[in-house]
Amino acid sequence: MAGIQDVAKKAGVSIGTVSRVLNQSGYASEKARKKVEQAVRELQYKPNELARNLLKKQSNIVAIIVPDISSAFFAQLVSVCELELREAGYKTMICNTNGDRSQEKEYLEMLNRNLVDGILTCTHSLQTEGYKEANGPVVSFDTVFVPGQIPRITVNHKEGGGLAAKEFLRVGCKKVLQFRDQEATEHFPFMDRHEVFEETMQKAGVKCENIYVKWNEFADRYYQDLVRDVYSQYPDVDGVFGTDALIIHFMRYVQRKGKRIPEDIRFVAYDGTNLRDMIFPTLTCIRQPIKALAKKGVEVLLNKIQGSMVEEKEIVLPVELIQGMSTMTVKEKERYLMGK
Amino acid sequence: MAGIQDVAKKAGVSIGTVSRVLNQSGYASEKARKKVEQAVRELQYKPNELARNLLKKQSNIVAIIVPDISSAFFAQLVSVCELELREAGYKTMICNTNGDRSQEKEYLEMLNRNLVDGILTCTHSLQTEGYKEANGPVVSFDTVFVPGQIPRITVNHKEGGGLAAKEFLRVGCKKVLQFRDQEATEHFPFMDRHEVFEETMQKAGVKCENIYVKWNEFADRYYQDLVRDVYSQYPDVDGVFGTDALIIHFMRYVQRKGKRIPEDIRFVAYDGTNLRDMIFPTLTCIRQPIKALAKKGVEVLLNKIQGSMVEEKEIVLPVELIQGMSTMTVKEKERYLMGK
Repeated sequence: MAGIQDVAKKAGVSIGTVSRVLNQSGYASEKARKKVEQAVRELQYKPNELARNLLKKQSNIVAIIVPDISSAFFAQLVSVCELELREAGYKTMICNTNGDRSQEKEYLEMLNRNLVDGILTCTHSLQTEGYKEANGPVVSFDTVFVPGQIPRITVNHKEGGGLAAKEFLRVGCKKVLQFRDQEATEHFPFMDRHEVFEETMQKAGVKCENIYVKWNEFADRYYQDLVRDVYSQYPDVDGVFGTDALIIHFMRYVQRKGKRIPEDIRFVAYDGTNLRDMIFPTLTCIRQPIKALAKKGVEVLLNKIQGSMVEEKEIVLPVELIQGMSTMTVKEKERYLMGK
Repeated sequence: MAGIQDVAKKAGVSIGTVSRVLNQSGYASEKARKKVEQAVRELQYKPNELARNLLKKQSNIVAIIVPDISSAFFAQLVSVCELELREAGYKTMICNTNGDRSQEKEYLEMLNRNLVDGILTCTHSLQTEGYKEANGPVVSFDTVFVPGQIPRITVNHKEGGGLAAKEFLRVGCKKVLQFRDQEATEHFPFMDRHEVFEETMQKAGVKCENIYVKWNEFADRYYQDLVRDVYSQYPDVDGVFGTDALIIHFMRYVQRKGKRIPEDIRFVAYDGTNLRDMIFPTLTCIRQPIKALAKKGVEVLLNKIQGSMVEEKEIVLPVELIQGMSTMTVKEKERYLMGK
């Protein structure tokens, strides 16, 4: 396949002249223009997008950085982002950091060198200070926020923590535990739910244990081991609050142990990914609006890339409690199953 | 940020001369070389990878085309591919086709224009004929196969279908149904399991119903509706064979209806994604070696990209049956739960 160099050689002009002719920018003599056009025809040269992007300093590529795309929340988020970006004419590059912050740095470098036009990030390995070095459009989901530079799309996690706590109180739980993010580097919005949850419980006089979960660890094996250890330490717990995957593993473990859900132990799952729709007993969850989050993130990023005015602020979307069997009273459960 | 044009302008030479100096390829006079080097220093010009890639005709990007990345099988496959590619110095671009074959065509075009160095595909919208037009390295997971051009990495689906059938026969199922892919365009390896499953059942004198599933449809809502309709049509079925997500939805539905698993109805799930590890009762599955599939696909693609000799053949990896509660006899179930 002929390249721009071949065209330049055949036309007897410089690469710069070829690019000026092909991009209709800058001066080229009428004679040079004709020679280039003839060479293009003879060589059946196809305008190369890499070359064109180089001149325009844009790649039409957006990178999405996630901790682990095989985790349901991130898989769903990326799926929607990819569709939205594609419809706007952008390709999607993905990067699993698996907790490795050098990955994030590398992508910020790529942004600085115009290899990607923008970055959507939902990781939390590199600190905000690192992100400040970004020399291009970055939008964060729920993590870094640099007013005037990096907008953040988040949800109302405080409300989420409160809704979960009230649901356990409504059905009379007396000893609950919550799985909690370790604040290894900075405080991020999604951690807000933990504080509100604990406070609400304490105000109602209900004991709340905090179980700290490792950063950037989404392996099922880790969840299984954690659940086994925690349950042997707190066998009398009657309410558990955590992310979808953790709660699902916990439910599975106690069912194996012969416990009844919701009679013996109740659960509220945080996130409301598609995992929630696969489980029986059906699961009460605090649902994050994943699709709306993704759409808003892409919208703000594209506005930044395309040079529209963007207020680099925090955008907060609502959460909702979806009722399932896992927090029903015995009567509610009976009615629910009768209705099916 | 200074570009190659700025360097050329400051040095008073052509862009071609700058690129020859920077890439140490082709002729440039000693005088020009010095001028370029001085301009690079003064402008603090950073070699632009887009420009370098353009000259080398490589992008260091590999595209992965999947039907739907939010589906667990593809999320896990892409996750492993991304890690393997990253370790080899490649970035990963993803594309959800959602059944839209124009997406696949677009990526094949990108390959032809050196915008991506290679393609891993596991979609089945575009026919094999379309893939034959690819002018660069393509490796397929379980779909297209063009001997001498596009190698295919697959698993022994025939064995998978046989193992599933024998498991239902072992526990005495009398009326089973399997969810089956529609052969809309071509026959692909993963469909082999359906034929072997049905044949094995028929030989043993057990009735096997075939339920045809829509192409490229992975939405939970579709699965839920399908399961409801199928179960109302076959309320006396005692064994169900299908992909992980379909089986998990089916199990959830019959549990809501008050059926006991495995006493009243038994299940074998095909794929063995991480969903399998979240479900109770634990699930018998035919596990595809997703990690090994991904690694082998990336290995073969990189060999092709890097010009090593690759025999463009079909590589078949083994499957295995993982026993869960969903096909246990009553005695096996009792022993299993005692052991927990």
